[in-house]
Amino acid sequence: MPEQQPTTGPAAAAWPARSVDWQDGAIVIIDQTALPAEHRVLRLTTCAEVVDAIARLAVRGAPALGVVGALGVAQSAARHSTNGRTDEAAVRAEADRIAHARPTAVNLSWGVRRALARLPEGPSAVLDEALELLATDERTNREASRRAADLVLELTSRRPLRLLTHCNTGRLATAAWGTALGTVRELWQRGAVAEVLACETRPLLQGSRLTAWELAEAGIPHRVCVDSAAAFAMARGMVDCVLVGADRITANGDVANKIGTYAHAIAAARHGIPFVVVAPESTIDPSLASGAEITVEERDGGEVTSFGGTRVVPAGCATFNPAFDVTPADLVSAVVTEERVVTAART
Amino acid sequence: MPEQQPTTGPAAAAWPARSVDWQDGAIVIIDQTALPAEHRVLRLTTCAEVVDAIARLAVRGAPALGVVGALGVAQSAARHSTNGRTDEAAVRAEADRIAHARPTAVNLSWGVRRALARLPEGPSAVLDEALELLATDERTNREASRRAADLVLELTSRRPLRLLTHCNTGRLATAAWGTALGTVRELWQRGAVAEVLACETRPLLQGSRLTAWELAEAGIPHRVCVDSAAAFAMARGMVDCVLVGADRITANGDVANKIGTYAHAIAAARHGIPFVVVAPESTIDPSLASGAEITVEERDGGEVTSFGGTRVVPAGCATFNPAFDVTPADLVSAVVTEERVVTAART
Repeated sequence: MPEQQPTTGPAAAAWPARSVDWQDGAIVIIDQTALPAEHRVLRLTTCAEVVDAIARLAVRGAPALGVVGALGVAQSAARHSTNGRTDEAAVRAEADRIAHARPTAVNLSWGVRRALARLPEGPSAVLDEALELLATDERTNREASRRAADLVLELTSRRPLRLLTHCNTGRLATAAWGTALGTVRELWQRGAVAEVLACETRPLLQGSRLTAWELAEAGIPHRVCVDSAAAFAMARGMVDCVLVGADRITANGDVANKIGTYAHAIAAARHGIPFVVVAPESTIDPSLASGAEITVEERDGGEVTSFGGTRVVPAGCATFNPAFDVTPADLVSAVVTEERVVTAART
Repeated sequence: MPEQQPTTGPAAAAWPARSVDWQDGAIVIIDQTALPAEHRVLRLTTCAEVVDAIARLAVRGAPALGVVGALGVAQSAARHSTNGRTDEAAVRAEADRIAHARPTAVNLSWGVRRALARLPEGPSAVLDEALELLATDERTNREASRRAADLVLELTSRRPLRLLTHCNTGRLATAAWGTALGTVRELWQRGAVAEVLACETRPLLQGSRLTAWELAEAGIPHRVCVDSAAAFAMARGMVDCVLVGADRITANGDVANKIGTYAHAIAAARHGIPFVVVAPESTIDPSLASGAEITVEERDGGEVTSFGGTRVVPAGCATFNPAFDVTPADLVSAVVTEERVVTAART
């Protein structure tokens, strides 16, 4: 187990602004499985620790995974270099383990690949590349958020806005700032937000645990609801725009994102509510023609069958537990990246 | 607190077939808040116990609430009768408390009203009426299930069927047998069921706790999924028909049911999957023109913010926690009761 540095209560105010950081050869992350009950910082220094942190979602969120993947390769390159020689095969084997720790988020393998590309130049070059991704991530997110905020204000007329979001796409899902939740921050700074409805995001409750925590931290008014209440909130006229992130976007604009996103998109379309996806360019995977080609991770049924140590189903009960779903492009008003706004058929 | 009779493990096999029963002046129910961890039988004998059991969902499900409401009035009539004289005002006051213990399920006030109508004839007549409702409920459910099963087989072509359901509409939601889940039982007995996908039904997990328990009891193959995975399951071709119950159906065919039902209905419509509502005639409320007139119960936020004693949101977090939603008639393939099949615009 990596070293743990629990901080709780007021001490949390002293947290680093970055959710992923690099300190003296260690990847420093906020353990997202412990929030909001406990504020715990993890220092990852081995390949096994990196893979474990990714697999059990101690670090999660497509952009954050890209940065951690690259930093993990940088650690590996340093470990397997002596006297100016690097055991490239050993580094590539570890990089492969990291890239496959989760299958759906394309950013993870993108970050690993970006770092690996510098391997022939030696471990310093790999680290430079990883640190460049770390430094770039916040700028990327802020630029995407500005573009997305402009678009949301164009697509909506009510002021201030009632926004609905799913899962966590904030600073905890990125190195800093966030994507869809970064857009909420940007709109809030422009004085345009009345309230955010944060869907709890079963099974792992990233909405309740992480998004509510970030919104409270930022002082943005919010309420948490069960995921299946989103459609009813739309029907009752409580939602002006839906903002979500993405884990992989295919060439035709289909969007893989946290399970539940698709249901929100269908409901938003029925109610004529803009459905906006905010993600870095690195989320776009031009190698896949459509969502039908995306591998959707199915996770352990224990995420569904137990909660907080309490078993909620009869013994032996089977589950269906996809971690993601795919929203077809026709339900997406726009995909906004740091470079562009891609509008699809719906708008 | 009412008397508790916990039974766990193998002893559960000795349970009464009826989830609501009448024994020596007591309303005997299975405490649905304790399942599946504990099998506890409650004996309700006072008005306060009846109101409390309804309010905290120890007994739930529209048909079961109708029966319990009527039996509660029968107890009240007996309590307030001496020497052949009944204090009708006292009975009506208690009946009013019972009828308002939950606002959305019309069956509760219907059961109370049915029993109260016999009050001028004395307490025995009130009890006769309540026992008649109890006796009728299973027959009603079985007849509705037969009709609904016939319809489902008409509307679908794949055999055996993959069915999706939400919340609990089985014997635990009725005196016996069930409505939508009764239809699943009926289809299973006809050899037509491959698998049931039971949505967990946040926030109170009636799907995980109660429906999975009933399906296991009946030996019907099933898996539990988070509510927001239903739309994705439909997109992946895993669902041939959606079967749900109802808490109130308005004159135009709009259906109030457990929160999440509406989202499933929108998704089913997108995928051309039949969406069938099974409910007794007593669920139909001709006094309301449409769903816009339905009072939707909002319940305590603690149902969303904590689970199994574990707090899942930051301190002070606000919630939106509607217990029900309203599915417009255009998304409903048919409403099936013990008397008829009402098909709406969609089919």
